[in-house]
Amino acid sequence: MSLDWLSAPCVQPDAAMAEAARAHQLQLTKPPGSLGQLEVLAIQLASLQRTPKPSVDRVWISVFAGDHGVADEGVSAFPQVVTGEMVRNFASGGAAISVLARALEANLEVVNLGTVNDPGEIPGVRRAIIAPSTANFCLAPAMTPAQFEAALTVGAESVQAAKAAGAQLFIGGEMGIANTTAAAAVASALLDEPPSCLAGAGTGLNAEGIRHKVSVLERALALHAGADTALERLRCLGGFEIAALAGAYVAAAQAGLPVLVDGFITTTAAMVAVAFQPDVRPWLLFAHRSKEHGHARVLQALAAEPVIDLGLRLGEASGAAAAVPLLRLACALHNGMATFEQAGVSNA
Amino acid sequence: MSLDWLSAPCVQPDAAMAEAARAHQLQLTKPPGSLGQLEVLAIQLASLQRTPKPSVDRVWISVFAGDHGVADEGVSAFPQVVTGEMVRNFASGGAAISVLARALEANLEVVNLGTVNDPGEIPGVRRAIIAPSTANFCLAPAMTPAQFEAALTVGAESVQAAKAAGAQLFIGGEMGIANTTAAAAVASALLDEPPSCLAGAGTGLNAEGIRHKVSVLERALALHAGADTALERLRCLGGFEIAALAGAYVAAAQAGLPVLVDGFITTTAAMVAVAFQPDVRPWLLFAHRSKEHGHARVLQALAAEPVIDLGLRLGEASGAAAAVPLLRLACALHNGMATFEQAGVSNA
Repeated sequence: MSLDWLSAPCVQPDAAMAEAARAHQLQLTKPPGSLGQLEVLAIQLASLQRTPKPSVDRVWISVFAGDHGVADEGVSAFPQVVTGEMVRNFASGGAAISVLARALEANLEVVNLGTVNDPGEIPGVRRAIIAPSTANFCLAPAMTPAQFEAALTVGAESVQAAKAAGAQLFIGGEMGIANTTAAAAVASALLDEPPSCLAGAGTGLNAEGIRHKVSVLERALALHAGADTALERLRCLGGFEIAALAGAYVAAAQAGLPVLVDGFITTTAAMVAVAFQPDVRPWLLFAHRSKEHGHARVLQALAAEPVIDLGLRLGEASGAAAAVPLLRLACALHNGMATFEQAGVSNA
Repeated sequence: MSLDWLSAPCVQPDAAMAEAARAHQLQLTKPPGSLGQLEVLAIQLASLQRTPKPSVDRVWISVFAGDHGVADEGVSAFPQVVTGEMVRNFASGGAAISVLARALEANLEVVNLGTVNDPGEIPGVRRAIIAPSTANFCLAPAMTPAQFEAALTVGAESVQAAKAAGAQLFIGGEMGIANTTAAAAVASALLDEPPSCLAGAGTGLNAEGIRHKVSVLERALALHAGADTALERLRCLGGFEIAALAGAYVAAAQAGLPVLVDGFITTTAAMVAVAFQPDVRPWLLFAHRSKEHGHARVLQALAAEPVIDLGLRLGEASGAAAAVPLLRLACALHNGMATFEQAGVSNA
């Protein structure tokens, strides 16, 4: 295996198409700019999809699941078995993202990268098992180089499947007990900021739990202070599903497939992808501002302006799924409204 | 005609159903509270609809259009003929709300309360003509008592039609050149705050235009300083469509039909309805935070927490329509997710 593919160039957005879409918006029967961010989203999608009629009818959602060695440090409100249990729940249709994917008529792919209680073969779940868990990054790098390469590649494979299925928008989600700890570690290392700025309640820690999480993060960051690139920080402090997401985002930009980023963990994966390849950035739309403490900071680092702000903090791609209808309406308005001339309406 | 109907009691929300919905949310396979405002919305709709399975599949949108005498003062960036032109555009499918209603499979009713350039009989438009325009409220009350009663009643008739059609959610919208001026006048009088706190750019005034608008508002407020009830302020300073909206909101609460409030003008109408009948308030959900200057203030006065914040400032019910999919997803999650027990997932 090799990571050479990561360095392949990204597709460039179509600047002329963006300009044409902007001019089209000014002709529609409304005061200029009065549809706010819905105009911006339509223009952005027109530019990325290289079409005057952008569409996100066909949405592909991949939820990457993996367990984390750092769960041994007692950093989560839920037991580690939940990761595997939720993989089953995703596939059987009872999880939030299952309900949302059905409502959106989106394609939902569940990818098992390795869980401590392996749910085994389940219809609708892609088995891409790397190991039952990452290593506890307080003691060793989370992933070996081979494991890391494998995880990145699993993400790229999902994008290839999405592209082959004709998807117009790629959404990545994650599930993994303790993965807000891993994401906070990666973000803290990338931003060179203390973990207290990035660590939050996750699935429901109280203030004492968060203090403990911060102390765990401080030990981990000290141990891996020598990791001096974005990718190496992700290998030492991340998780299988976070690496898969980073790989997926790079692959999506290379394939010219727009991405809708979900919450704290996925935005952290996006930050790694952009640090490694700045040309990934234009392909990322940001769905929501999560309630998880560190999300605002990583969004800011990416100059991201999310679509919704509903106090969500579930992960699983749920926030991204919730924002999809707004993107669809943005496209419907852009493609379906009459111009002043067509409607015989006087302009300002 | 009489306004006695306005004083009939509102339906009370079902507190026991709200409690049951709250308990149900805690059983679903997610950390408690992690779906944020989507949980709150589902609980609220369960309580208002008196059902464990809330739904807003059937949405009714009424857009009320009317012209304003105060347009004579030069307070709008668009010419007054646009009101009538847009009535035609709503009905022929080219306006933003037309596109949104189609995308949502919502019922769109367009109500013409009186426009300076009368578009005549148009299929899909309910003619409820009161007069070609309100009076210029810098010179006289905007509406006579009879006109005011008629406008309120037109709104109630729309709610009756919505109810008869089996609607699960009522949305009111508005169109009327100069109606941000009228709404700012009403809000300013109700809140007893200077018009500069409420007057904004509307369809696109520059700073000088806004200063002129404020001076117009100051003259109008001085003239009608004697209007000392919410309804009388609405009669003297409002417009046909704003009165229709206020009547619709009261009627919806009396009929037990939840309402999704749109932007600045509709929220101002809601403020009048609540001032007159505080029991209207529980029936109002708030869709979005508009970019129009005064909206934040009237939202605050109603302790409203809107669902989205996308810099919209179009009116026509467009912001409310944009928020509908989020309410639908909130219901889908509430009704469709598995419990911890059903899914065999360990709880915290």
